[in-house]
Amino acid sequence: MNVTRCAAAGGPEVLRQATVPDPSSRPGEVIIGVEASGVNRADVLQRKGHYPSPPGAPEWPGLEVAGTVSAVGEGVTARRVGDRVCALLPGGGYAEKVAVHESLTLPVPAGLSMSEAAALVEAACTALSNLREATAQAGETLLVHGGLGGVGSIAVQLGAALGMRVLATAGGRDRADRCVELGAEAAFDYRTEDWATEVAARGGADVILDVVGAAYLEPNLRALATDGRLVVIGMQKGSRGELDLGMLLAKRARVIGTTLRARPLEERAAIVADVERTVWPLVPDRVRPLVHATFPLADAAAAHTMLEAGGVTGSLVLTT
Amino acid sequence: MNVTRCAAAGGPEVLRQATVPDPSSRPGEVIIGVEASGVNRADVLQRKGHYPSPPGAPEWPGLEVAGTVSAVGEGVTARRVGDRVCALLPGGGYAEKVAVHESLTLPVPAGLSMSEAAALVEAACTALSNLREATAQAGETLLVHGGLGGVGSIAVQLGAALGMRVLATAGGRDRADRCVELGAEAAFDYRTEDWATEVAARGGADVILDVVGAAYLEPNLRALATDGRLVVIGMQKGSRGELDLGMLLAKRARVIGTTLRARPLEERAAIVADVERTVWPLVPDRVRPLVHATFPLADAAAAHTMLEAGGVTGSLVLTT
Repeated sequence: MNVTRCAAAGGPEVLRQATVPDPSSRPGEVIIGVEASGVNRADVLQRKGHYPSPPGAPEWPGLEVAGTVSAVGEGVTARRVGDRVCALLPGGGYAEKVAVHESLTLPVPAGLSMSEAAALVEAACTALSNLREATAQAGETLLVHGGLGGVGSIAVQLGAALGMRVLATAGGRDRADRCVELGAEAAFDYRTEDWATEVAARGGADVILDVVGAAYLEPNLRALATDGRLVVIGMQKGSRGELDLGMLLAKRARVIGTTLRARPLEERAAIVADVERTVWPLVPDRVRPLVHATFPLADAAAAHTMLEAGGVTGSLVLTT
Repeated sequence: MNVTRCAAAGGPEVLRQATVPDPSSRPGEVIIGVEASGVNRADVLQRKGHYPSPPGAPEWPGLEVAGTVSAVGEGVTARRVGDRVCALLPGGGYAEKVAVHESLTLPVPAGLSMSEAAALVEAACTALSNLREATAQAGETLLVHGGLGGVGSIAVQLGAALGMRVLATAGGRDRADRCVELGAEAAFDYRTEDWATEVAARGGADVILDVVGAAYLEPNLRALATDGRLVVIGMQKGSRGELDLGMLLAKRARVIGTTLRARPLEERAAIVADVERTVWPLVPDRVRPLVHATFPLADAAAAHTMLEAGGVTGSLVLTT
């Protein structure tokens, strides 16, 4: 089969087509004929050599796909050949076929295209699992950074659908306005507005979902309410920042670091099951993935270039 | 009545005797004739002007007392005049009398002196509530810094009694050895040993209870196991430190800041009730407070001087 893999660590140009043997299914796994594969920031980190696939996963990038089950392994009970599914992967999604444990698959929701389904899986798992990590409750205030990004746009919609009051940041007034359309009560242009002060003035955030990292550590703490939880899921602007423990203690706040990819299979399967229970009933009316653009799998480099340039609304998807 | 209060912000010498009106009980409150009052690091911070009593509490220091109920206010149901009680206070313990809500009082445990009871309340509430904040579980590994301090010595005993594997740090080999006598599996002299590497080599800490703050932020993160929780309850060595978010995410770890004093009454009452349920049955056989020395209330300055000099084993107590 064809895959797109990294010939070396580097810029988008290292992403190259290659032919590799088809995957075979281990017990409990299904083979999916991939039709769409989501592009994530983690893929960019992986391409740069900072975030290799975990042991046992294919070396090529790709954390989520949608397609049709073409074979099922021993012991598979929930999926059949021909099922339209999407799946959360530890890697290997930039391919024509993937092997994945059935517990990491979900039915493609009615009303979504394959590209939309591929764009939704990882974001929904990330958003929901981190709201759970933060024990986010209906009625609480949720601040979503990058509210128009792949994860952010899902988090804004999901938070609002779950009864949270959602605030968001985005790059540009027009993008902030789109966040409000997605369900945020207010959204701030981080380029021109002092969002931390604005959020604090609105009573502070009980939960913050942050993809920015070090550069936002200090303002995030300022924006937190008493008993607030800052969940850091990305480090787009630095990995080392000064933490003001005095403020952390005074607010009885917590800083939570999480990743999805490295978790044991059972934990990832539990998250996928939670997404099917909690998020899938909200799709597509209350939660709908935004697909900014699609590219052929062979053109993954163009998708990476676009993602790194910024300004993407929702997700980019590779199609086969 | 006599109290010992801070004439100004400064060194131990600012602690002065004064005469103030006796307290009166609001509904739900009892008056305690104080026989013993615990001395805490927070009192030192308060004396230095960094940690004032919260609104509604007396301005003089003191977070815990033991004594005899001398009067009960309207609506009090659980305590009677003559009861031997100890109490968790938001402030005002350096006094001959205190008024405190009955829900913040506990019976003096059989087998403990008034001084021991006074030394136990705040430490037990702090240790237990923070193990709860960290969702500490039996079988997990708990690292206690300052394992021979007021809170630390209770945390070591409590952690072991609750089925945790306890590791500890202390200043000096002899003090580390005392931590092992209290129930730690191993303890490290932080002056000469690389405790973070030692803890990591033992599989890492699932929970760390830290009173040191900024200076320990980096080694604490190194010492944490995957899914570990660092609970910072003190800042003896700095309040601002660099946080390595990369490591935080890779370990799916969390940094939790807590304080007890500023919590709403209901939360403090819930903690006291949890202590009575969980810790009191372990006293004095499995959990016993260590009273290093007692001083007359009028000599609070000497107690502060001793506490700041370091080397105290357990707690210092003021007696009236």
